[in-house]
Amino acid sequence: MQQSPYFLQSQSASASPHTSLSRPLATDSAAHLSGLQQTFRQIPRTRPYTPLLDTIDAPVDIKALNPEQLIVLVDELRLFLLYSAGQSGGHFGANLGVVELTIALHYLLDTPQDQIVWDVGHQAYAHKVLTGRRDKLSSIRAKNGLTAFPERVESVYDTFGVGHSSTSISAGLGMSLALRYQGRPQTVACVIGDGAMTGGMAFEAMNDAVQQDADLLVILNDNDMSISCSIGGFSRHLAMLWESGYQVDISDTGAAVLRHRPNMQAFDRRKRHSEHRDVPQLEDNLFKAIGFTYFGPFDGHNIPELLRVLSLAKQVKGPVLVHIYTTKGKGFAPAEADPVGYHAISKLPAEDIVACDFAKDKAAIESGATKDKPSKLKYSQVFGQFLCDKAAQDNKLLAITPAMEEGSGMIDFARQFPERFFDVAIAEQHAVTLAGGMATQGVKPIVAIYSTFLQRGYDQLIHDIALQNLDVTFAIDRAGLVGEDGATHAGVFDLAFLRCVPNMLIAAPKDENECYHLLNTCYEYEGSTAVRYPRGVGTGAMISRPAQNYKIGQAVVETVLGNAHATNKLALLAFGTMVATAKQAAKVLTSDGATSDCQVQVVNMRWVKPLDTNLLETLIEQGVTHIATLEEHMIMGGAGSAVNEYLLNASAAFAVSRPAIANIGISDRFIAHGSQAEQLADCGLDTHGVVIQLQRLLTSLKA
Amino acid sequence: MQQSPYFLQSQSASASPHTSLSRPLATDSAAHLSGLQQTFRQIPRTRPYTPLLDTIDAPVDIKALNPEQLIVLVDELRLFLLYSAGQSGGHFGANLGVVELTIALHYLLDTPQDQIVWDVGHQAYAHKVLTGRRDKLSSIRAKNGLTAFPERVESVYDTFGVGHSSTSISAGLGMSLALRYQGRPQTVACVIGDGAMTGGMAFEAMNDAVQQDADLLVILNDNDMSISCSIGGFSRHLAMLWESGYQVDISDTGAAVLRHRPNMQAFDRRKRHSEHRDVPQLEDNLFKAIGFTYFGPFDGHNIPELLRVLSLAKQVKGPVLVHIYTTKGKGFAPAEADPVGYHAISKLPAEDIVACDFAKDKAAIESGATKDKPSKLKYSQVFGQFLCDKAAQDNKLLAITPAMEEGSGMIDFARQFPERFFDVAIAEQHAVTLAGGMATQGVKPIVAIYSTFLQRGYDQLIHDIALQNLDVTFAIDRAGLVGEDGATHAGVFDLAFLRCVPNMLIAAPKDENECYHLLNTCYEYEGSTAVRYPRGVGTGAMISRPAQNYKIGQAVVETVLGNAHATNKLALLAFGTMVATAKQAAKVLTSDGATSDCQVQVVNMRWVKPLDTNLLETLIEQGVTHIATLEEHMIMGGAGSAVNEYLLNASAAFAVSRPAIANIGISDRFIAHGSQAEQLADCGLDTHGVVIQLQRLLTSLKA
Repeated sequence: MQQSPYFLQSQSASASPHTSLSRPLATDSAAHLSGLQQTFRQIPRTRPYTPLLDTIDAPVDIKALNPEQLIVLVDELRLFLLYSAGQSGGHFGANLGVVELTIALHYLLDTPQDQIVWDVGHQAYAHKVLTGRRDKLSSIRAKNGLTAFPERVESVYDTFGVGHSSTSISAGLGMSLALRYQGRPQTVACVIGDGAMTGGMAFEAMNDAVQQDADLLVILNDNDMSISCSIGGFSRHLAMLWESGYQVDISDTGAAVLRHRPNMQAFDRRKRHSEHRDVPQLEDNLFKAIGFTYFGPFDGHNIPELLRVLSLAKQVKGPVLVHIYTTKGKGFAPAEADPVGYHAISKLPAEDIVACDFAKDKAAIESGATKDKPSKLKYSQVFGQFLCDKAAQDNKLLAITPAMEEGSGMIDFARQFPERFFDVAIAEQHAVTLAGGMATQGVKPIVAIYSTFLQRGYDQLIHDIALQNLDVTFAIDRAGLVGEDGATHAGVFDLAFLRCVPNMLIAAPKDENECYHLLNTCYEYEGSTAVRYPRGVGTGAMISRPAQNYKIGQAVVETVLGNAHATNKLALLAFGTMVATAKQAAKVLTSDGATSDCQVQVVNMRWVKPLDTNLLETLIEQGVTHIATLEEHMIMGGAGSAVNEYLLNASAAFAVSRPAIANIGISDRFIAHGSQAEQLADCGLDTHGVVIQLQRLLTSLKA
Repeated sequence: MQQSPYFLQSQSASASPHTSLSRPLATDSAAHLSGLQQTFRQIPRTRPYTPLLDTIDAPVDIKALNPEQLIVLVDELRLFLLYSAGQSGGHFGANLGVVELTIALHYLLDTPQDQIVWDVGHQAYAHKVLTGRRDKLSSIRAKNGLTAFPERVESVYDTFGVGHSSTSISAGLGMSLALRYQGRPQTVACVIGDGAMTGGMAFEAMNDAVQQDADLLVILNDNDMSISCSIGGFSRHLAMLWESGYQVDISDTGAAVLRHRPNMQAFDRRKRHSEHRDVPQLEDNLFKAIGFTYFGPFDGHNIPELLRVLSLAKQVKGPVLVHIYTTKGKGFAPAEADPVGYHAISKLPAEDIVACDFAKDKAAIESGATKDKPSKLKYSQVFGQFLCDKAAQDNKLLAITPAMEEGSGMIDFARQFPERFFDVAIAEQHAVTLAGGMATQGVKPIVAIYSTFLQRGYDQLIHDIALQNLDVTFAIDRAGLVGEDGATHAGVFDLAFLRCVPNMLIAAPKDENECYHLLNTCYEYEGSTAVRYPRGVGTGAMISRPAQNYKIGQAVVETVLGNAHATNKLALLAFGTMVATAKQAAKVLTSDGATSDCQVQVVNMRWVKPLDTNLLETLIEQGVTHIATLEEHMIMGGAGSAVNEYLLNASAAFAVSRPAIANIGISDRFIAHGSQAEQLADCGLDTHGVVIQLQRLLTSLKA
């Protein structure tokens, strides 16, 4: 066997792990400072006293601090984040976990010349505070406030927008290669969570970084937690690296030094992963295998150790990965105890002043539910109920999620049918093709996926599902505008990219009840189907069981209002969420004196593909003079386009009578964050905006 | 350090590596049989004499053979594949490399109950021959002939359609989980090439296979060769496993047994990878790190060894990876010497009868060039010329390809500007985001990608490029119908999935010259752009240098034919390749007596986004009575839809004069393989088909 490149330090040396940590802080007391950090038990309701933090207006101010002050800054920053999260809601646990890392990076690097790429972006709150956005942090996720993720237009310190995960190594490698090509010596550091690492493109990027022999510092922020805390081979591997008892330390010359891992009690929860496994081996290191220089694992809450390790690692040539352990929710006792529950939080309600009350809010994580309307089901809950109901009747039903068990409403299903539930981690491409493989063996898989994440599995949906017309149902959550997460999470492209794919059926329910029955209808159909439904709650429609099997491609006339003998006969062809809006708009139009010469029909189209072309023909034969299509989706290529295509190409009646048409939807721009209601209004898709557009349609033909 | 789970065999045992190979063939001579396999030097022009192969009508017939006969079958099958490739063209080297593996798998497994998933599918020719399709193999890739890839509707032995790479582990895992859930004990074996393994979804699937502890046999067919022979961390890792000098063998009880690797001279080309590296270590095994049981590397051309290893490995519980080495082009001397050149071949021309002539055909690999029109440039060559010309003028230009250096026409560029050329291996997601990262640092990257593969980087294009409006140009090759590769490689969705993305400019050149200038125009534009162009050659238009900067969003009236005072004024709004077809159709329409009352304008739209709406208004104001949009793309959501959307929503003139509209393109179905001409005719997109559709349009309004 070849000699190991590691030098194995003696036990005595490793028994005192911090003895060599004297640089770059140049104080023997630095090693003990990390123990000073505080743990908080409550969310402060008033702006906490943070005198040191208040002096940090840019990263350069951090560089002036001494080691003791850095520890004070850790505490102040953490307390400030707690306060701010109470004010604004948003991602929470991940940010508390990277306070020390964020401070260390800005202390060591010369940002913004050096580049930090945060993956996923929702761990960048501390970064935002330290880069001149302290006083705006409470506005995060609000309309016109800070974005929830790094955004290039928001700050020169935000090097790359990262809303979806697993992109940082690719983006950072691109930066590194471009800098090298131009002879610029800046450092590029990517901070990637263990959950994000399961996304295959991180692996693609590591493969390429080695090929390019690029100078790239990847910091694996291992907090033992993707959103749904899935395990998987990769997570198991990280646990094994931890449990090996070894640590690959970095010497003053940048060489790897193997030693026994210093005891870090705080992370012993890791051990649960290995209870039923063989003793791991030191030698199987994935990062070394792929060709990275690996250092770790290190305590990510130990500021002196972080500074020592990172200052040395950033000077090592070629791709380097530094593996640190952090605790999600670090420094806030309730979150440390329940990191899943504190992944993200909603705004602190006015009456809550202590943390234990705050914890009640966990259930509203990632939801659109408001506290004053507890009776409405979220669409994700409707999906969860459908799953449980159907699975009880049909043992062919299997369900897959790419790391969104909770967000997709699958907790009950996973508990009731664990052998039929598959959380594949952040791995959308795999999730789709896995379903395809399953479907070849006579079962009926359902893929629960957010619209925005289905973009990651598009090619797989085309080839591995639709081309083979396999019996897979896509339950597409978060379709349409999604609120505070903003443009990176909007589900506004799915109809355009799905509609052009042969064999696909696409349904868009108008409310919770219809969602239930459309899920059933698509599930029963033996082929490739998708049901798209929005984030949050709908109209409050109760679910009427048993599940029905709707006729595929059949629309429903919801209501006809106004004067039956009016000159203007307007048909509102509404898809999904826009049915309710269309009905309200119809009431406004027909109750308004200015449009009394108007009859308005509201059609719930229900299916984007196939379209109910019979109904379209009937409407035209009935003499409609105006048609408006309404959808919570881009106009370009969307459901309205489908109506256009049919009427222009195939409808003989249309060619003769030629009603005027308006496609109402989202125009050709990305929609910034805000509440869903604010976003809809911004797009002209609230009732007021729709009425204005309809009045314009009615007027245009008169002119 | 923990004790290794391996048992290291003595040197004496490993010096005679085949002594333990007596089972399952139960003959001591089996070990020596592999040396009998022949190497051929010519492509047979007449059907070779293959008496044993001719008895194999299904895998069950293989099981009846004895070890000596299996070796004979290897030779006959290889000779037959050579003959057949000469008849039909197609993928070549990979199939010669897996002859032994294919025979071994069908000998050992009980197909079709047991499942074999081929990744990528173009290594499945031998599989097709052995599963009842021997006499149809010469029809491969021809219209109505066998498909180039496994296809479920073609055979029960084709378990999953695999046209794009890296999907097999996901699909196989789905099968395995569905079988386990149903209590069915079948084996699932995935055969994946080392090139396909760089695709991140393979990593996602391995991660999940470990999480599920699924019984899954993955055979890594390591032929040291993705299509463009890129290295990367993963390929380097495989080389290191090889060069370690060790082999993880499998014992009779299924345990891992470490021993010195038997000498396999044939594979010593591997060594070039390590010339400048440290001596590798045994211990860093990526597959073991992720949690797979790993065996290998083994000689993939040694039938007895394959049978022994695979028969034992398929009984090991949990996810198992067997790593075999094969030689691409094995058994055909010219291909062994030049595996890149023999990745795929065109049909053997009638006058060529010996292999050395045959080798001339290499340049036509993956091209649409025909031998009798050597003067025409392929679009990929036009792109290559643009790259070289522009790079010479602008040192900000960098170019990226995901493993398609040759297919995308980048060989000259890579040679002239090696420091500006980035082949990232099969890793489309990474390719896109890498470009985004580069663009943040003041360079101007171009991503060369086939339309069908861009589907893999869709989410990244939205978030990492367009949302941040980064200065990246996509050179989208193989847009439209692509011929023999069939539906899995068709580029017929790009306009639909790109058009809805804000900030994107999309251009579609009518010919080679316009392609050159549109590439220049999009490159010069400081934002996110795409130029889509087809596979193969165009009209033969010569490139007029220097590069021009076209006005963005400006269409060009190409020609006006027919009677200026005609009642019927038809405007043909043609995109990209359809401009030439539209011109031909216009000639036919205006020369035909039946439509003499007809004026036809042909417009080269040039831009899909932004549309030239000024020109649309002008046409309508000029009194066009009929408008047809023409595109080599799905009708749903395509360029025609863009015209519909504008006219219906924004054109006041249209609302008044209301010309009739037809959207001509590909209707809502997948298009089977055939020549590009056959596919176009099949879709009604040849001149004849377009004329018929235009006549229908003209007639419909008269009715």
